[in-house]
Amino acid sequence: MAFGTGNEAGHLNPATFSHARGEILARFRHNSIACSFTCQRSEEEIRTHLTGNTGNITTDVGPPGLPILTDTFVRLTKSPVVSIAKLRGCVRGVSSEFVLACDMRFASRENTRLGQPEVGVGVHPGGGGTERLPHLVGRGRALEIVLGANDFDGDTAERYGYVNRALPDAELDGFVDALARRIASFDRRAIAGAKSLINQVSLPSADRLLDALNSFQTALTWPEAQQRIQALLKRGLQRESEFEKAWPAVLGTLLDET
Amino acid sequence: MAFGTGNEAGHLNPATFSHARGEILARFRHNSIACSFTCQRSEEEIRTHLTGNTGNITTDVGPPGLPILTDTFVRLTKSPVVSIAKLRGCVRGVSSEFVLACDMRFASRENTRLGQPEVGVGVHPGGGGTERLPHLVGRGRALEIVLGANDFDGDTAERYGYVNRALPDAELDGFVDALARRIASFDRRAIAGAKSLINQVSLPSADRLLDALNSFQTALTWPEAQQRIQALLKRGLQRESEFEKAWPAVLGTLLDET
Amino acid sequence: MAFGTGNEAGHLNPATFSHARGEILARFRHNSIACSFTCQRSEEEIRTHLTGNTGNITTDVGPPGLPILTDTFVRLTKSPVVSIAKLRGCVRGVSSEFVLACDMRFASRENTRLGQPEVGVGVHPGGGGTERLPHLVGRGRALEIVLGANDFDGDTAERYGYVNRALPDAELDGFVDALARRIASFDRRAIAGAKSLINQVSLPSADRLLDALNSFQTALTWPEAQQRIQALLKRGLQRESEFEKAWPAVLGTLLDET
Repeated sequence: MAFGTGNEAGHLNPATFSHARGEILARFRHNSIACSFTCQRSEEEIRTHLTGNTGNITTDVGPPGLPILTDTFVRLTKSPVVSIAKLRGCVRGVSSEFVLACDMRFASRENTRLGQPEVGVGVHPGGGGTERLPHLVGRGRALEIVLGANDFDGDTAERYGYVNRALPDAELDGFVDALARRIASFDRRAIAGAKSLINQVSLPSADRLLDALNSFQTALTWPEAQQRIQALLKRGLQRESEFEKAWPAVLGTLLDET
Repeated sequence: MAFGTGNEAGHLNPATFSHARGEILARFRHNSIACSFTCQRSEEEIRTHLTGNTGNITTDVGPPGLPILTDTFVRLTKSPVVSIAKLRGCVRGVSSEFVLACDMRFASRENTRLGQPEVGVGVHPGGGGTERLPHLVGRGRALEIVLGANDFDGDTAERYGYVNRALPDAELDGFVDALARRIASFDRRAIAGAKSLINQVSLPSADRLLDALNSFQTALTWPEAQQRIQALLKRGLQRESEFEKAWPAVLGTLLDET
Repeated sequence: MAFGTGNEAGHLNPATFSHARGEILARFRHNSIACSFTCQRSEEEIRTHLTGNTGNITTDVGPPGLPILTDTFVRLTKSPVVSIAKLRGCVRGVSSEFVLACDMRFASRENTRLGQPEVGVGVHPGGGGTERLPHLVGRGRALEIVLGANDFDGDTAERYGYVNRALPDAELDGFVDALARRIASFDRRAIAGAKSLINQVSLPSADRLLDALNSFQTALTWPEAQQRIQALLKRGLQRESEFEKAWPAVLGTLLDET
């Protein structure tokens, strides 16, 4: 799947997310996230804004001095390109953090499992979830999402402000497509100016994001985390599709003898 | 229409907004906003707190060094007088920014069209919308409201936190009147103290508000903005009442040949 | 009632709040709040984290230099122990501020009266309500809650973000218990790390909390406040159980002749 083409009549067909950032952002695309990038920008400009780094997503240092994962998400938030994430299916962990770094999030009402299950696996979010959720949903709901480590359905995610809104599955594509096309028809300087002003009062600092990533990398080395990860793999993670769909449900009894 | 009168029995009848700030705030009163100012303050005190400047609403500099538009909204937020906006009809652009600067907002469920359509007209909000919305509704919904540039009905505005709540049209006046009278019965120092504490953790800085206004004034000079404004006027803005009611709906195809 | 016991099989039974902090936090327990503290911590560790001070709850200065009330709430928010408040009945004033300092809040849908009625009594909140509410519910709703000084039912509290969610009364205990046990099964370092990161972007500063408490203590000395408190006592506060249940409703006419 490629970017949308064309810049005919002064409009850009909203770019449909797929291989932006190639080997990196492509990881975030399962069947569950599609992301529209929209603006009066050419495909090349969008690529330039959102890509440029390659390498190990968590350890390499990109041009602005941030590790690539953090750098990618920071670019996404600060880019004049508008990103609209469409959620359908399982969106967990770093996928959730990817959509939290997008400008807007719309979810299938019937078919969304959104969450940050890291704490239940013995670590914690490291890609911005702990920094972005409190601003969107408040401290109490952010703590419930992160410490409870469970899936949230579309309606609850909307009620909490985790997504902009949940829509009936049959209406989701049409809604997001219409919004992306609408925004794509607007003047690029107006879009960039408005987004930049909102960013000034709504983005976490790079310091906070770096602290989270560093803390996460330390957590990955804890023996307790490795023990839980092994237990999850033994239960069926990355092997059984039914287990993949619902594994956060078992995190509360992960180390129990079975 | 005048302020409510009276200070009988230690109470002030809640002042009904109308000509506060005379030639200036009066602009914010269409049929769509009524604003109660309430506190144990006399009419004269309310006038003194909220007025004092005259002149061009976007360029003149008022006593505290802020342009009048920004100064008016900052006064409203910092005043010991409590402002309760009642929304019924179309409340867009600077009218939306006026109600965002009020202390609370209640909307008619059936009859509200609330929004910041500036980006669709080639500019962006300049009167605090980009600074106040993220704190109320979160970054994702603020970006949808501002970049989508469309109308929001009462229920969606409530769900997003854009207004405190949407009420059935028949109950709106009674609800707001009862709340205004209730607050007006409380001690003025208690009200002022509580509002001041909440302000400390919830108001945008003057620097942010000034950046937005300056950026907006620059945007007004862009040829692309002028082109869109002309297209809107040609389509019927400020001339046809049906078009006035629903014009944000056409912003996505504003420059298309018709 | 005592803390839950046991640390069997690597789990801690979620401690059921009761006498944590002995003579102090026990005040917050009416029939209306039960609070689970959960973490892989022993009962003694939880006690150590949350207690240690004794004395007058509003005036004594505890170890970190904060008055005891503020110190207790700050400890609760910063503790690696997770606190989950369960609301059933009347939760007002400092009780509301206690649950706002907890990590999460779940309320009975049918049987919750939650609020900050202080302004209607001539003073204002002093235990963090004015600092914590704006982050949870936004400035407009925080001002409505604090200046309106009225009770909020479970559904409205959920819609505003005052509580995480309202649940049918019959499901409340099971939901909170399951969540507490689930979190208690997770690794304590993962929990502490995640909570600490979220705290960095969601807690009010000690300066703000101290300003509020100082301002509250001054307000208590105002003759107008004393007059309103006396009027409330005369009407039946602390004497008549029916009045106790619904007294915020009369605050708008408290000083009227009857």
